[in-house]
Amino acid sequence: MAGNIIGEMFRVISFGESHGKCVGVVVDGCPAGLKLSENDIQRDLDLRRPGASNLTTTRREEDRVEILSGVFNGYTTGAPICMVIWNRDVRSEDYESLRYTPRPSHADYFAYVKYGGFNDYRGGGRFSGRITAGFVMAGAVAKKLLKSLLDVEITAYALEIGGEKAENFTLEDARRYRYENECRAPTTQAAVEMKKKILEAMSRGDSVGGIIECIVTGIPPGLGEPVFDALDSDLAKALFSIPAVKGVEFGAGFKAARMLGSEHNDPLVVVDGEIKVEKNDAGGIVGGISTGAPLVFRVSVKPPSSIALKQKTVDLRKRLGTEISVGGRHDPCIVPRAVPVVEAMTALVLADHAIRYGLIPPVIKNR
Amino acid sequence: MAGNIIGEMFRVISFGESHGKCVGVVVDGCPAGLKLSENDIQRDLDLRRPGASNLTTTRREEDRVEILSGVFNGYTTGAPICMVIWNRDVRSEDYESLRYTPRPSHADYFAYVKYGGFNDYRGGGRFSGRITAGFVMAGAVAKKLLKSLLDVEITAYALEIGGEKAENFTLEDARRYRYENECRAPTTQAAVEMKKKILEAMSRGDSVGGIIECIVTGIPPGLGEPVFDALDSDLAKALFSIPAVKGVEFGAGFKAARMLGSEHNDPLVVVDGEIKVEKNDAGGIVGGISTGAPLVFRVSVKPPSSIALKQKTVDLRKRLGTEISVGGRHDPCIVPRAVPVVEAMTALVLADHAIRYGLIPPVIKNR
Amino acid sequence: MAGNIIGEMFRVISFGESHGKCVGVVVDGCPAGLKLSENDIQRDLDLRRPGASNLTTTRREEDRVEILSGVFNGYTTGAPICMVIWNRDVRSEDYESLRYTPRPSHADYFAYVKYGGFNDYRGGGRFSGRITAGFVMAGAVAKKLLKSLLDVEITAYALEIGGEKAENFTLEDARRYRYENECRAPTTQAAVEMKKKILEAMSRGDSVGGIIECIVTGIPPGLGEPVFDALDSDLAKALFSIPAVKGVEFGAGFKAARMLGSEHNDPLVVVDGEIKVEKNDAGGIVGGISTGAPLVFRVSVKPPSSIALKQKTVDLRKRLGTEISVGGRHDPCIVPRAVPVVEAMTALVLADHAIRYGLIPPVIKNR
Amino acid sequence: MAGNIIGEMFRVISFGESHGKCVGVVVDGCPAGLKLSENDIQRDLDLRRPGASNLTTTRREEDRVEILSGVFNGYTTGAPICMVIWNRDVRSEDYESLRYTPRPSHADYFAYVKYGGFNDYRGGGRFSGRITAGFVMAGAVAKKLLKSLLDVEITAYALEIGGEKAENFTLEDARRYRYENECRAPTTQAAVEMKKKILEAMSRGDSVGGIIECIVTGIPPGLGEPVFDALDSDLAKALFSIPAVKGVEFGAGFKAARMLGSEHNDPLVVVDGEIKVEKNDAGGIVGGISTGAPLVFRVSVKPPSSIALKQKTVDLRKRLGTEISVGGRHDPCIVPRAVPVVEAMTALVLADHAIRYGLIPPVIKNR
Repeated sequence: MAGNIIGEMFRVISFGESHGKCVGVVVDGCPAGLKLSENDIQRDLDLRRPGASNLTTTRREEDRVEILSGVFNGYTTGAPICMVIWNRDVRSEDYESLRYTPRPSHADYFAYVKYGGFNDYRGGGRFSGRITAGFVMAGAVAKKLLKSLLDVEITAYALEIGGEKAENFTLEDARRYRYENECRAPTTQAAVEMKKKILEAMSRGDSVGGIIECIVTGIPPGLGEPVFDALDSDLAKALFSIPAVKGVEFGAGFKAARMLGSEHNDPLVVVDGEIKVEKNDAGGIVGGISTGAPLVFRVSVKPPSSIALKQKTVDLRKRLGTEISVGGRHDPCIVPRAVPVVEAMTALVLADHAIRYGLIPPVIKNR
Repeated sequence: MAGNIIGEMFRVISFGESHGKCVGVVVDGCPAGLKLSENDIQRDLDLRRPGASNLTTTRREEDRVEILSGVFNGYTTGAPICMVIWNRDVRSEDYESLRYTPRPSHADYFAYVKYGGFNDYRGGGRFSGRITAGFVMAGAVAKKLLKSLLDVEITAYALEIGGEKAENFTLEDARRYRYENECRAPTTQAAVEMKKKILEAMSRGDSVGGIIECIVTGIPPGLGEPVFDALDSDLAKALFSIPAVKGVEFGAGFKAARMLGSEHNDPLVVVDGEIKVEKNDAGGIVGGISTGAPLVFRVSVKPPSSIALKQKTVDLRKRLGTEISVGGRHDPCIVPRAVPVVEAMTALVLADHAIRYGLIPPVIKNR
Repeated sequence: MAGNIIGEMFRVISFGESHGKCVGVVVDGCPAGLKLSENDIQRDLDLRRPGASNLTTTRREEDRVEILSGVFNGYTTGAPICMVIWNRDVRSEDYESLRYTPRPSHADYFAYVKYGGFNDYRGGGRFSGRITAGFVMAGAVAKKLLKSLLDVEITAYALEIGGEKAENFTLEDARRYRYENECRAPTTQAAVEMKKKILEAMSRGDSVGGIIECIVTGIPPGLGEPVFDALDSDLAKALFSIPAVKGVEFGAGFKAARMLGSEHNDPLVVVDGEIKVEKNDAGGIVGGISTGAPLVFRVSVKPPSSIALKQKTVDLRKRLGTEISVGGRHDPCIVPRAVPVVEAMTALVLADHAIRYGLIPPVIKNR
Repeated sequence: MAGNIIGEMFRVISFGESHGKCVGVVVDGCPAGLKLSENDIQRDLDLRRPGASNLTTTRREEDRVEILSGVFNGYTTGAPICMVIWNRDVRSEDYESLRYTPRPSHADYFAYVKYGGFNDYRGGGRFSGRITAGFVMAGAVAKKLLKSLLDVEITAYALEIGGEKAENFTLEDARRYRYENECRAPTTQAAVEMKKKILEAMSRGDSVGGIIECIVTGIPPGLGEPVFDALDSDLAKALFSIPAVKGVEFGAGFKAARMLGSEHNDPLVVVDGEIKVEKNDAGGIVGGISTGAPLVFRVSVKPPSSIALKQKTVDLRKRLGTEISVGGRHDPCIVPRAVPVVEAMTALVLADHAIRYGLIPPVIKNR
C-alpha cells in the first residue's frame, strides 16, 4: 500500500483514474517565487495528449490543466501545487467486456488479484498510460525550476521504433525536430521510417515497441546521494514507474558489459582550466554522482499489450481459457507519447536532487 | 545529503568506509522471532569475500560479521540489527598517491568535488566495492526471512563475462554450480571460458565486465505498490546502488523494444485450476506488480576502473594532465563478487514489499 | 520545504488555501474494499463547518465533499483517495488591508518572511483553520477503517473553555452530548457555562481558549514503533499540526511531574484472565506502545489571534508601528470546531500504526 | 516495525540495548567539513552518564564514545557517522527475576506483548533510558553544526523536581549553573531544594518526577515546514521519544487555554529597524514556523517506575497477581539525566529543519 509518492524534498503525489473524474498530481516542495502559469504546464501536456495524430488512440481529450492550489498572482507560493485534468471522453462500456477477460500482458488481471477485485478496471484504471499525464504536469513544474535556476535542459526522443533506429543526428537535431514529427524522432527521415513501422503493425492489428534516449545538459556536478539515493538509482526508479518500460541503461549501458576497462574508462582532461571527462561513456554519472557531463540514458519500451489480434486469455468467472481481441481506442506504439513522460520523470528526480544538494533555495528571489 | 537509507518498512542503513574502522549496516524493521545467527550472515559474506580466489583482489580480509544489536537468545527481537565487519588488512599508503591523481571512471574525483575534498579517499572510501559487504549482511537477513516465511529463493549468476556467455543451462544448474566456481557461472564450462577472459585481461593489466542474471522463485503475486513504488522501480533503484551497474532490464528487457505486441504478449492460461502466464517475457512483473511467475532480470556490470595499464588523468593540484597506472589490489572483474550483492539487494526489496503487502507479520510465532 | 505529508503507510497529503479554489487532501494507503461514500465524510465535515452556530465565523460555506478518485462502486480501490471541498463564500477584500499590517500572533507575518512574500495571504492562506477541513476528510476515512476493522472509537470534547471546566461526566455522556451542543462539551450544563464565556469575550471583541480531551477505546495493545515512531510521538506530531495547539499531554501529563513513583505507577492486575492496568495514569501508552487501556490525552488550544480589539502591530511597508482591529469573520473560540479535527488527526495516526503493526490488511474481504 | 529513524535530511538511526554489546547511533546527512572529534561528543555524553553523582543509578559505565565511521582527519566526510558506547558494567542477573514479573508502568510487559516475548528484556532492553545515550551522541553533532554555522544555543534545565520549582533566574543563570549542580537546576538554591526532594523519596524507596524547560536562542525565523512538519510538531515528536515524557508545551502552553486573545496575542514591534514580537508567549513558534524569538518549551517527566517499594504486579507464567520490589540500580529521578537528552533531541530537529530550509550547505567550506 501507499506507493504513490516519489521524491524526498520535491515530492510528487499521483492520483486519479483513466475513467474516473480526473487525473491529478500534487507537488509538495516547490520553492516559493517560481513564475508559473497553466500555460507552462499545458505545453508539455499537449505533447502527450491523445488524439493529436493518427498514430495515437482516438480518445479525444482536451487534457486542459487546472491548477487547484499553490500558485497565487502568477507565482508559486511554497504551498503544495495540486493540478488536475478532467476526464471527458470516457467510454467505459468499451471496458465492461474486459472486466472478466483480462488482456494478456496488461495489468488488468494482476491488479484484480492484488486489490481483490476492488480496483477500478475501467480503461485500466490506475494502470492506464493516462496516469502519466499527472507525471507530465509535475514534470513541467520541475523543468521550469531546473531551466530557470540552473539552465538544465532535458531532451528525450525516440531513438528506435519497431526496430527502426535513428542515426546520424546531433543533440541540436533532436531538440529541433523531435516535437515536429509524430514519432518524436530526432530526424525527419527516421520519423518517416518509424511511422511506417507503426502503421504497418497497426494495419495488422498489432503493436510495436522502441527505445527512448534522453540527454540532459547543464547538470552541475555533485548531484546524487550515494550509496542508496544515487542519481542513477533514483532516475531508474522513476523511469520504471512509466508503464511499459522494461529496461534502463546509462551511458554505455549493456554494452559496457563487453568492454575492457581500458576501453570504457574515461580519461580526465583539463579543458580551459576545467577538469572534464573525455568521452562520457558513463553517461554523466559515476559512483552515483553527476559528473557535470551530459546525462545520457536509454529506456526500453515494450509494445502495447492492447492489440486487435486475437489472443489467448482466461475467463475469470469460469476459470477457463477463452480468446480476446481488444477493441477500444489504443495506441499501436507508446513510444511517441512516452517521450515527454520520460522528460518529466527525469525532471522530477533532478529537481529533487538539486534541492537536496542545496542548489535550489526555498524562495526564488529574482523573479 | 542523507542518501544512505533504503526501504520503507524493512529499512537498511549503510555506514563505514573501505579503510576506516569497519563496514556496517543497520536493519530496522526485521520482525521479531526470526532465528538468526552470525553463521547465517557469514555464509553470504564469504561468497563476496576478497582474496578467496586468484580472480579477486589480494586484499586479505576475514570479513567476519559481528552482530552488535537486535538479536537475543538466537532470535531477532524486533529491534534494529546492527552488523559490522572490522577492517584489518588496510594498506592506505597504496592510495596516498591517488589522492590528487584520480583514477579515470572511478568516483575518486567526483566524490572529491561533491564533498569538497573532505571525503575519505583511502581505498575509495564510501565508493569502494567493500561497502557492499554491508548490503550482503542485510540481504542475508532478508533472505532468511523470505525463505522461511514465503519459500522465496533468489538465484543470481554470471550470465556473461568478457563477452563469454553461459548457454544451455537450467535454473537447477545455476543453483547447483554458481557457487562452486570462481566465476559464479551457471555451468562449469562457462566458468572455464569466463575465467580465461578474466585472466587474459588481467595479464594485460586490463579488466572486463559482464552481465548478471537473477531469477527469483516463490514470489507471491501482488507484490509492488504502483505507481511509484512499483516492484521493478524499487528493484532497479536498489540494483543501481551497486557500484559498476550501468543497466537493468526485466524479462525481455531491451529486446522487448524490437518485439511486436503479438510476440511479447503473454497469454493467460489455466494450469491445474490456477491462472498463470504462459511465457513470462515480462520477467514476473506487470504493471509494477509481481505476477506470481518467477522474477527474471539482468544487470550490466562495467569493467573495473582500476587497471594497471597507463591512462590519462589530471593532477588535481597542478590542474594539469598526467598519467596513472593503478597499483594496489584490485579485481580484474567485479562480476563474480557482485553476484551475491545482486541477490542481497533483491532480497532487501522483496522483504520490504512483502511486509508492506502484509505477508510478513511483526512477530514470527512458529519458531 | 515539502512538509505536507504525514504518515508512513497510511499517508495523508494536504493541499489548498482558505481563499483559493479549494481545500483538499489525498489519502495514499487506504486498503481496498472499504465501503465508503461521500456521506461518511460529510458527517464529520459538517461538525467543523463554519456558520453552523452563532459561536463561529459567519463565513457561509456548504463544505460539501467531492471524492475525486480512489473510490469505485462504493468501495475504496486501494488507489489514492483525493477529496476536496470547493471554496464559495470568499471575500478576499476583507484581507487586502491585512496584507501589510499583519495580525499579532497570527502566522501572517512569519509566513510572509518564510515565503518571501509569495504566500497566499488571503484569509491566512495555508495557515487558515480552514485547512483542517482536509484533515477531517482524511480522518473520516481513517475512522471508518478503525471502526469497521478494529472497533476503535475516538471521542474528543471540550474539557474546558475560557476557564470553565466540564466536571462529573462519563465517557458515555461525552459520546452522547458533545455533538448536541455548540461547544462540543461533554455535558449540557458545561456547554451553557462555556457558551457564556465565549459570548462574553465576543461581545468585548476578544477571544478565549480551552482544552480538548480525547479518549479512544478499543485500541489493541502493541501499537507504536519505538524508539522514534512511538505512538505518543506520532500523535503529538499530528496534534501540533492543528493551528492554535500549544500543548499536548497524555494520561496524568503535566501532573505526573508532581507525583511520586508509588502514586503514578499503575499496577498490573488480572481481570477475567486478562492482564490489565489498574488506573491508566499513563493514558494508554507506556514506552511508546499502546497498553490496551483507553488512550487519554489533552490538548491546549490558545485563544484565536483575530480579535476586534485594537492591537499594536507594524506596517510592513513603512516598517513602523501601527494599530489593527481585525474585522472579517472570525471565531471567538476555536475549541468547538477543533474537536472533530483532534479526532481526525488521532484517527490518521492510529490507522497508520494499525497498518504498520499488521492489523489492517491491504484488502478488506468481508464487505 | 521500523520506527528507529528520525529526521528527513539530518537523519538519526538508533540501535543497541541496555545490556547488549553497545548502544549506538548513525547520523546520515551531516554535511562534510564539520570539525568533529570524539571529545565533542564525550562532553555531552558525560552529562548524562550514570554513576556521576549519588542521585543516579550506581551502574558504573565509562560511556566512552567511539566514532566508527564518517569522520576523517578530524572532519566529517559527508558519509554516515556511526557512534557507539560499549556496555561494560552489565549485571543482567538483576533482571532475570523481572522477566516474568513485569515492573508496573515500565515497558517490560507491553514490549513482551508487542514482540511476542522475543524482546531483550535485560535492563529494559530497548526501553532503557540508556538508549538515550545514542540520542545524546547524535545531538552533540547537531549542536556543533548549529552552533558553528548559525550560533544557535540550546539550554535545558530542571525547572521543577518533586514539586520544587526554580524561581527568579535568568537564562544566563541557567547556562552558568545547570551543569554545575547534580540536579541540573538553573540556580544553586533550587538545586539544593530539589536534591532534598530526591533524597527524601529515595530513602523511602520511592521516586519523583519533574519539569524540564528548554530555551533556544539564535534560531533564525522561517524554520518549520507546515502544515505537518511544523517546527512544534517535529519537536514534540522528538521529545516524546524520550522515555518518561508525558507532556510537551510551547510558550504559554497549557496556560494559554485560560488566556484571552488580547492577553495572549503578541504585538509586533519595530526594534532598531527589526520587526520583533514583544512578549513571546508563543514560545518562538507561530503557525509552525520559528519567529526568530527564542524557542521556549517545557516537558513533563514522570517519576521513574522502578522503585524499591512493594507494588502489585502479575506473574506472567501463572497469570496471577503477585508483588514486586525493584532492586537493581535505578535513578530515583530521571530529570537531571534527561536534561542533556532534551537538548539533544532539540538539536536533531533544529539541524534537520535548518538543512531543509537551506541554511546549512552540504559542504562547510570555512573550516
